[in-house]
Amino acid sequence: MGRKIKLIDTTMRDGSHAIHHQYTKEKVMAIAKGAEEAGLYCIEVGHGAGVGGSVLQYGLEKESTIELIKAAKSMCKNTKVGTLLVPGLGTMEDLKKAVEAGLDLVRVAVHCTEADVGAQHIRLAKSLGLEAIMFFMMTHMTSPVELAEQAKMAEEYGADVVYFADSSGAMTPDDIKDRVNAIRSKVSIPIGVHTHNNLGLGVGNAIAGIVAGCDYVDGTFEGLGAGCGNGNLQAIVAVLNKMGIETGVDLYKLIEVGKNEVRPIIEHSLEITGESILLGYIGIYSSFYLHVIEYAEKFGIDSKLIFEELGKRKVVGGQEDQILDICHEIIEKRKGNVNEK
Amino acid sequence: MGRKIKLIDTTMRDGSHAIHHQYTKEKVMAIAKGAEEAGLYCIEVGHGAGVGGSVLQYGLEKESTIELIKAAKSMCKNTKVGTLLVPGLGTMEDLKKAVEAGLDLVRVAVHCTEADVGAQHIRLAKSLGLEAIMFFMMTHMTSPVELAEQAKMAEEYGADVVYFADSSGAMTPDDIKDRVNAIRSKVSIPIGVHTHNNLGLGVGNAIAGIVAGCDYVDGTFEGLGAGCGNGNLQAIVAVLNKMGIETGVDLYKLIEVGKNEVRPIIEHSLEITGESILLGYIGIYSSFYLHVIEYAEKFGIDSKLIFEELGKRKVVGGQEDQILDICHEIIEKRKGNVNEK
Repeated sequence: MGRKIKLIDTTMRDGSHAIHHQYTKEKVMAIAKGAEEAGLYCIEVGHGAGVGGSVLQYGLEKESTIELIKAAKSMCKNTKVGTLLVPGLGTMEDLKKAVEAGLDLVRVAVHCTEADVGAQHIRLAKSLGLEAIMFFMMTHMTSPVELAEQAKMAEEYGADVVYFADSSGAMTPDDIKDRVNAIRSKVSIPIGVHTHNNLGLGVGNAIAGIVAGCDYVDGTFEGLGAGCGNGNLQAIVAVLNKMGIETGVDLYKLIEVGKNEVRPIIEHSLEITGESILLGYIGIYSSFYLHVIEYAEKFGIDSKLIFEELGKRKVVGGQEDQILDICHEIIEKRKGNVNEK
Repeated sequence: MGRKIKLIDTTMRDGSHAIHHQYTKEKVMAIAKGAEEAGLYCIEVGHGAGVGGSVLQYGLEKESTIELIKAAKSMCKNTKVGTLLVPGLGTMEDLKKAVEAGLDLVRVAVHCTEADVGAQHIRLAKSLGLEAIMFFMMTHMTSPVELAEQAKMAEEYGADVVYFADSSGAMTPDDIKDRVNAIRSKVSIPIGVHTHNNLGLGVGNAIAGIVAGCDYVDGTFEGLGAGCGNGNLQAIVAVLNKMGIETGVDLYKLIEVGKNEVRPIIEHSLEITGESILLGYIGIYSSFYLHVIEYAEKFGIDSKLIFEELGKRKVVGGQEDQILDICHEIIEKRKGNVNEK
């Protein structure tokens, strides 16, 4: 095909969800060193919910996103250091501090119907000399045509790239293809895709996106990420190699870094489970995964009941408090039923 | 699309590799009961290498394939009970005994270029009243056109269905599509696809096969299978449901059976690993996976060296003894190097 795919490794941002935001500077430096040596385009670091995301609702980070950006940057010459910024959680001030810490790229993350919320952040990012990406979350919740309209807005704000995330791991390969085609018909900037493996399609959907025309793709070492993980970075590169699509990345180095630096910090299995399938099938934000499993166990509630209620409420990122609310409702109902007997 | 996909669950055959062929009658009955209740088309049971496969080379089975077929059949009314037969390992006599035990369907498994080896077994299966499937293994090792010629032969022998297996988990979705298209141009019987997840495409390739025109697809509960597993059955059904493609199967029942009956017997993680990626990337038979990992650990050898040498030798199923041979060679070489110093 002749084109070269740009890989963004989000092990140290989306993967942060999976280790309760406990990255240390030392670990970030070790992975960043490997990423630079392997030739990755960009590593995204920081709290799972991005810079400013370290609040009780999402879980507190061990080391600040700003410090992690500095640590990553100290090891990278060619590999760009990026972070995520969710407007409302992260501020314009946070972005300026991140740039001082060495940031090269920012992904302004907004709900799939809310491009306008990120307009000023994209403009600021450009004025600060960053590569500015608008990153649409939960894009299974909107149609390809509506998403393309939002992408058009992102382009008008000055975004260099428009990304769409299957944040719930809820899409089929055709869903991915339809979105790429719709966006391509409306915008001329590059398109990127971010996948989750809840339905076992983390790698398959990344490949479907690239076949459909994406020039950027996300992955993580060992698949570490929210839900049962993201598209496995090493596997994506192996498959692209087989397809003869250039990434400029050393597969064997990636495998080595994954095995030596990332595998040891994985706290919970990244296997596809009945819970991850329900998450993807119903279409719930992947970062809810561990919270639901932990609360279900704590309160002795079938996780299926929680997922189904979250689905009914159409919750989006930021509404993690609803999980606890739903658990309490189920417990109250259960008590009611017992009394009625 | 209007068509209905037939699902063959091979948890109790391909999955047998992953638990060192230690299925008990009780476990088979429990899973078979769940499969029947969920409405699966067929469950395949027996040694990982099929009936007659219980030899030292592959590992000995705890309970004979014939007994496992009887156990499965005792729980199934609508769900067919199948087994695999590799000519040379399994005999015509084995097939007759399996039919007496209640077998409904047999998959005659041959290397991708050797349809003729299975001709008489397909004919016997038909004369015994079985659904007879020719099952081509390691099909990444031959071209779509050559595979289609082999499939044509299978049809001429009287096979009801022709299956192709990505036994190494080495194919891309395009590789799958190309094979389905080539076979379809030569034969009129239904086509089935069997996938492995070594490159993270277990589910994606199953879906690619169905989109391309397969009417049969394999999967396993929790993805249990050789290598880092097969296409996850529950995930495949969830994705097909989302695509509006009928399977006649109860997804929630599948999730329940997977969680309660299969998850507890899983001995090693089914996560994608550096080793599984090498296996798929180089294109080595998935059932070599655990053997390589175990020998590499035992002899203190980097598994990558073993995988690379297996790739050079183009080994196929049945050549497991070469793993040990390669280990000894590496050890001898290492001694030589030490002496030279």
